[in-house]
Formats: sequence, structure tokens, C-alpha cells
Amino acid sequence: MGEIDVTHDPNVRSWVESANAPDTDFPIQNLPFGVFRRRGADDAWRVGVAIGDQIVDIGACADARQFAGAAAMAAKLCHGETLNALMSAGPAASRALRFALSGWLRADLSSPFKDREKLLVPMRDAVLCMPAIIGDYTDFYASIHHATNVGSMFRPDNPLLPNYKWVPIGYHGRASSIVESGTPVRRPSGQTRDDANAPPTVGPSRRLDYEVEVGVFIGAGNSLGSTIPIDEAENHIFGLCLLNDWSARDLQTWEYQPLGPFLAKSFVTTISPWVVTLDALAPFRAPAFERAADDPAPLLYISSQSDTKSGGIDIVLELSLSSAAMRTAGVAPMLVSRGNFTDMYWTVAQLVTHHASNGCNLRPGDLLGSGTVSGATPESRGSLLERAWRGTEPLTLPTGETRAFLQDGDEVTIHGYCERDRHRRIGFGECRGTIVPADT
Amino acid sequence: MGEIDVTHDPNVRSWVESANAPDTDFPIQNLPFGVFRRRGADDAWRVGVAIGDQIVDIGACADARQFAGAAAMAAKLCHGETLNALMSAGPAASRALRFALSGWLRADLSSPFKDREKLLVPMRDAVLCMPAIIGDYTDFYASIHHATNVGSMFRPDNPLLPNYKWVPIGYHGRASSIVESGTPVRRPSGQTRDDANAPPTVGPSRRLDYEVEVGVFIGAGNSLGSTIPIDEAENHIFGLCLLNDWSARDLQTWEYQPLGPFLAKSFVTTISPWVVTLDALAPFRAPAFERAADDPAPLLYISSQSDTKSGGIDIVLELSLSSAAMRTAGVAPMLVSRGNFTDMYWTVAQLVTHHASNGCNLRPGDLLGSGTVSGATPESRGSLLERAWRGTEPLTLPTGETRAFLQDGDEVTIHGYCERDRHRRIGFGECRGTIVPADT
Repeated sequence: MGEIDVTHDPNVRSWVESANAPDTDFPIQNLPFGVFRRRGADDAWRVGVAIGDQIVDIGACADARQFAGAAAMAAKLCHGETLNALMSAGPAASRALRFALSGWLRADLSSPFKDREKLLVPMRDAVLCMPAIIGDYTDFYASIHHATNVGSMFRPDNPLLPNYKWVPIGYHGRASSIVESGTPVRRPSGQTRDDANAPPTVGPSRRLDYEVEVGVFIGAGNSLGSTIPIDEAENHIFGLCLLNDWSARDLQTWEYQPLGPFLAKSFVTTISPWVVTLDALAPFRAPAFERAADDPAPLLYISSQSDTKSGGIDIVLELSLSSAAMRTAGVAPMLVSRGNFTDMYWTVAQLVTHHASNGCNLRPGDLLGSGTVSGATPESRGSLLERAWRGTEPLTLPTGETRAFLQDGDEVTIHGYCERDRHRRIGFGECRGTIVPADT
Repeated sequence: MGEIDVTHDPNVRSWVESANAPDTDFPIQNLPFGVFRRRGADDAWRVGVAIGDQIVDIGACADARQFAGAAAMAAKLCHGETLNALMSAGPAASRALRFALSGWLRADLSSPFKDREKLLVPMRDAVLCMPAIIGDYTDFYASIHHATNVGSMFRPDNPLLPNYKWVPIGYHGRASSIVESGTPVRRPSGQTRDDANAPPTVGPSRRLDYEVEVGVFIGAGNSLGSTIPIDEAENHIFGLCLLNDWSARDLQTWEYQPLGPFLAKSFVTTISPWVVTLDALAPFRAPAFERAADDPAPLLYISSQSDTKSGGIDIVLELSLSSAAMRTAGVAPMLVSRGNFTDMYWTVAQLVTHHASNGCNLRPGDLLGSGTVSGATPESRGSLLERAWRGTEPLTLPTGETRAFLQDGDEVTIHGYCERDRHRRIGFGECRGTIVPADT
């Protein structure tokens, strides 16, 4: 991990000019996978790869025989309407395809295919959808800062539970209500109980929140009853996306004992449409979270030297908010938080290995959420619950409005990117949702 | 609900003689749906309906034009390898097909189809598989007796949490590891911590348990952001099966705070292969759970007169256990518990309506588990944790062996049936699993 191969070479430029702009999320060094169709067309969905402001139509490339060998075989797996088939083929397949695409898109290609522009679709003419059929969705809780912050609000004397530093805590989430970026987020209704001496009431949530997370798509799966050794865990990961785990805090407080969050989460979860492969992220690897001297070492099954050395991934995560009044006034979205994925207590490999440690089968296209990415500083807190400290320190927006929790009309956007000296910046695109009123 | 129509008439006999035996689970009054193929054949899976010791091949019936009108259209939805298409068509479709089948299978049919036997496959020549692709699985906790029993072990002073009588408590479960009856159940490994002053240890679960539950298959779904009114809830239910929610109690105790059960459950969940429709269960409806005078009434969104009157379903649930030594000695399985589904605090309609009350979309083929079915008496407790009271009152098997929790080689079988005066007994078949040693 971390070595420079030709696909990461920052000096390589693409004949797709927009991919050479310094601020693009999608230079030739990235090449994330997604699923799209032409806007207004009633076509089938197609697998594509983002390059600058264009999408490479992989199925069309395969039909035009643009790739050979393993890449050609991988491209054939992209003829369906999802990434699941490519995911199931494991890292060798997507790596071969990414490598071939990197060559195919280079500006200095010796003999360019004459019809190559016909295999591109401008992003402005495309609609993106869910990249995969998600069989199961699991949400983790991997930021110790988030767990400590939330715990301290509810249990001031004992913010972090005894299992936290041993067990990568997670829970099964709802797959059916995961939607692609841009889908409106309807405020959920449900039971809440503010007054322990009165009956609960039913109505629209009054404490609607976001959670900034990273999503991890499983590639090759494991069979039921088998486990995934820690040093093989990353071979089961296809790539990463951004994820907003919308949360109704008032519903959550009332319902979550003893079996965990349920309706407080299952109304909607938003993901970004482009899946950035671990190969693209190789130059941005980082050590795993540095544990305090009195923290326990990870147990053997979730411990490895290479994971300790480079299990982290240096991804900056920014959340911005725009109220309806801000948009009316033409005010730019306000940056609310900036965190980093290296602040997570558990690595993605540890999440995968722990998940399968009881023999649970992970399937291609399954999605893991990292849990809210919060760091040590107030500016890096990845939920409004933490950022406005349970409503006691409301945000003030440029319009003078305040926010303890989300209001109808609020547009919430997560951006993610990797940036390092001597490397091209690569981005994740955006994960966006706007709150629409409850259906009452 | 509960009225007698011709499909329930106890005097109707079938030309499939085995269906007229008094002890069959599958008389002509039942007609549950499943998916099968001929043993040893490499055919596609096919949709079938159980009748006595035979299976009606629905696709073959459709090809042979045995049905007309709505039933013919419904039969065409059975050409796939799962029940999902039939489920998605809603209750009118499966009702029409069941009605037509009831007529087709009657002994007093005026002009029998001459090749009708060719449309049957003997069960002994068939393999059954999962009846549907399960998009999401949700497990509830609907028995107040179970919740109180388990709560009293962990919180003697406060066994039932304040939300229990208001909120149908549930959590998202794992869909990938749901398997059909007969699949071996590998003992899971995981972290446990018996001594709070020592680090947790990793190894095979030493407190493996079963949970007797009823599974509810969703038929027609609801769209994201919409809800399901309580009086429409049963129109979204395709049918019921038996479910064993295998549980590793030692893993559960250590991992479940604060986000609920995870690896303690996700290693495997077993269901019975035949799905009994609500139509078949109509004669066995019962009042909803009778709440104590000082219990709150259900909140309005999960309350209706008809649900109070007949939201319950009178299903007897029996669990039997057979150790390896018992089988070697030729000893019959031991009946461990007998409970009844009418002991649940929440009705199936309440579970469905609550689940969608936040706008969460339920999809055809989604599965809800009822939670452990435990009644007020010790004999009716649906988990070994309760039956052997946390290991303090171990069961004694006919061989003299004792059981506080499950041992390798134990075969656990759930049977379910409905029985009432003047009605034919209908059954659910069996939900069976045998514990195999951990993969260490």
C-alpha cells in the first residue's frame, strides 16, 4: 500500500481536458465507478467511470473492444445495471479495469481510438443512481470522539462504555431506504417522550440531524460460516463513498433501549454515487488510530502490523449547510465542520474482519457505514448533535438564523477529498440531501 | 376475517389422498407457498404449493393452462425462482391463486384434468430452498413475557423498560445469513467477557441459544416516505413462517450496548420453507393481547377496533430438542416448550404499521421476526435462556444429559400449527437446525 504506480503518477494528464483542472474531484488518478443513464432517456442504467466532467461508458467501451485480457473480462461484468458483478469479481478485476482505463484516458496515448469521444457522456447530461444493489447495510460507531461526545451527553460520569475499546461496535441498518445523493429527505414522524410523567406523543421529529460518515462497499464476499483474516480484509473491499446517516434524535432517545436505533435511522440514508476504489486511495494511506498508552491493544483477530502501519485513510470530510433563506438570499452554503477519516478508532479492515468473525457472510454490494466521523476539536464534529452540543450551542447562519437541529428546507452536503504533497487531489463528489416537511 | 369460505370448509377433501390424513400439516385448507426443485436435478428453482406429501408445480400448472382469470395471471408470476413477484402483486393475486388451487385440488371436481398427477412432485423427491429474496430482515421483541423474563435476569428491579408498552421494539437484522430449515448451524466465535477485571476473550460461544419466533413475509410494499395505516397493514402481509433466531448470549451480553444485538445474532437465522398465507389462517384469528387495566392503550396510529378484535392469530408453537446421544440411542426428540402466538403483546398489523410509520419502505419479500414467543408459564418459554433460567435450572434430557445452553450436535426443531373445533388443522411444517462445532 502507498507505493506509487503509474495510475497515481501526478504528472499524467488526460485527453479529457476537464480532468486536468486542479480542483476536479475526478482526475485520471481517481477513476471512481458509478451507475448512470442519459438524462431524459428511458435507457437502461449503465456502469460508468468519472473523469473530469465526463463519464466513461464502460459497457460501450467493452462493445468497442477497447480493453484486452483481464480488463476486457472485467468490462464485460459492467454490462448490467449495477456494480455488483464487478464487485463480486474481487480486487484483481477492478484493478485491471482501472489500470486499462488509466492508460486509455492518458493524453500521451500513442494511437488513440478515433471514436473515443463517443464513449463519453457529459455529467451534465447524465442522471446517477445507486451504484449497487445493497443486500445488507451495517452501520458502525468507529469514532471514539463521537462515542465519547454522545456518551457524555447521556451519561456524564461514564461517557464511554466498557466494550468500546475492545469491540468495533456496530448495528444492522436498513438497506431499503438508502438513496442516492440529491434525493429529498422527508422529515420522519414517530413517537417521542419528553416528559416521563406524560404519555409519549406522535408527530414530526423536532431533532433531526445528519451524521457525516464514510461508506464501505464490499467487493468479493465470504461464505456463511467462514471468516475473513485481518490481512485479507481489504481484498474484500471494493471502494468507498460518502454517507449521511440522517438521524431523528428524539425518536432515537425514546426507542433505542434495549435493542438499538431503529426508526430513528431507517427513514433515509444518503450516499454519494461514485465509489472510489482502494487502489485510487493507495497514496493516501495513514497509520491506524494512535491509541493512548493505557488503551488496550486490539485483540489478535483484528490486529496486524500492516493494518497498524497503514490501515488508516487520510480523507478530509466537510459538511456544509444551506437554509432555504440562504439560498433565497444567494448566500453560499456555510461550512459547518471539517473532519478527517484518520480520526477513527477502528480501521476499515478491522470493521470487515470483526463483522465476519462470527461466520456472518458479507456479499458483494453490501455497505458498511463507518459511524459519524468526529475528531478531537469542535470544528471536526460530524453531527449537529455534537456541533451544537445537544442544542445548547446553536449554530448561527449567515442570515442570522440559528440551528440546534435541522429545519425544513435545509440542504446538507458532504464533500470528501484526499490531498497530499506530490499527489493529485482526488475527490468523492458530493452527498447531498434537502429536508422536506413531514407528510402529516 | 374469520368467516368461513369454501377454502376453509373442513368437509372438502382432495384427490391427493395424503392431504386428507388428519395429522397432515398441509390439507387442502392450507395451501402454503414455497420454492423447490427435484432432488438431484440441476433444474431451476420453481414455485410450488404444499398439498399432503406432494407439491403442486405452479409454473407447470400455468403452462398447462389450469387456471383462468386472476388466478392465471397470478400463476404467471410464479415462473421465477422466488415468490417475490407473487408477493409484490398483493393479496388479491395470491388469494385468487389459492382459491383456484382449492378448486383444482378438490376430490369432487366435476371434470378432472387427465394429466393432473403430472403437475405434482412428491415432497420426498424435492429439495426446498428460501421462498424469497429477503431484502431486509427486521426482528421485533413483541412478547411482553419474554421481555420481562430477560429483563428480570439483567435488571431485577426494573425488568421492563419504560418504552415497552408504547413502542413495538425492534431492530434491523441480518438478511444474508437467513437460511432454510435443515441448514447446519455453525457455532459462532466471538468476543466475550465474563470477568470485568480481565480482558475479553475470543472463542466459540459457550451460551448458544435458540429463539422460537414467527416470521412475517411482506407482500405488497410501500414507497419511501409513505406510511401504512393500521387497517391496511394486513394487506401488506403475504404470509407467515416459523423462524429460529439463534442467539449467542455471551457475545450478546458483551457487545449489545449501546446499539443493540449484532454478531450475537447475525451468524445464522433459520426459517421454515413453507409460507402460510393470512387467508389460510383466517379461521384461527383471535383477539389482540388483552392488556392489563393499568396498561396504556396503543397509541392511535397502531390502534383499530378490528385489530383489537381479531389482530391475534392462534398458532401453537412447539420446540423440541434432540441431542446427538439421543439420536444414537434412538430416543425421540424431547418437547421443550409449547407456546402460543396469541401471547404476543403486539399484533402483526401493529408491527407492520409501526415499521413504516417513519416513512421506511417495506419491500415484497422483506421479513419481520416476531421476537421470541414466550407465554406466562415456564412451559411456554421460547428460548433456552428462559426455559433453563439463565442456566440455573438446566433441562434434563431422556439420556440424563443436561442442557443449560445448546451443545454441538443438538438438533432443534420448531413446529407450528393451528387447531380449532370444526376446522381442519393446518400446519407450518418444520424449522430445524443442528449445531455443528465452531470452525477453530
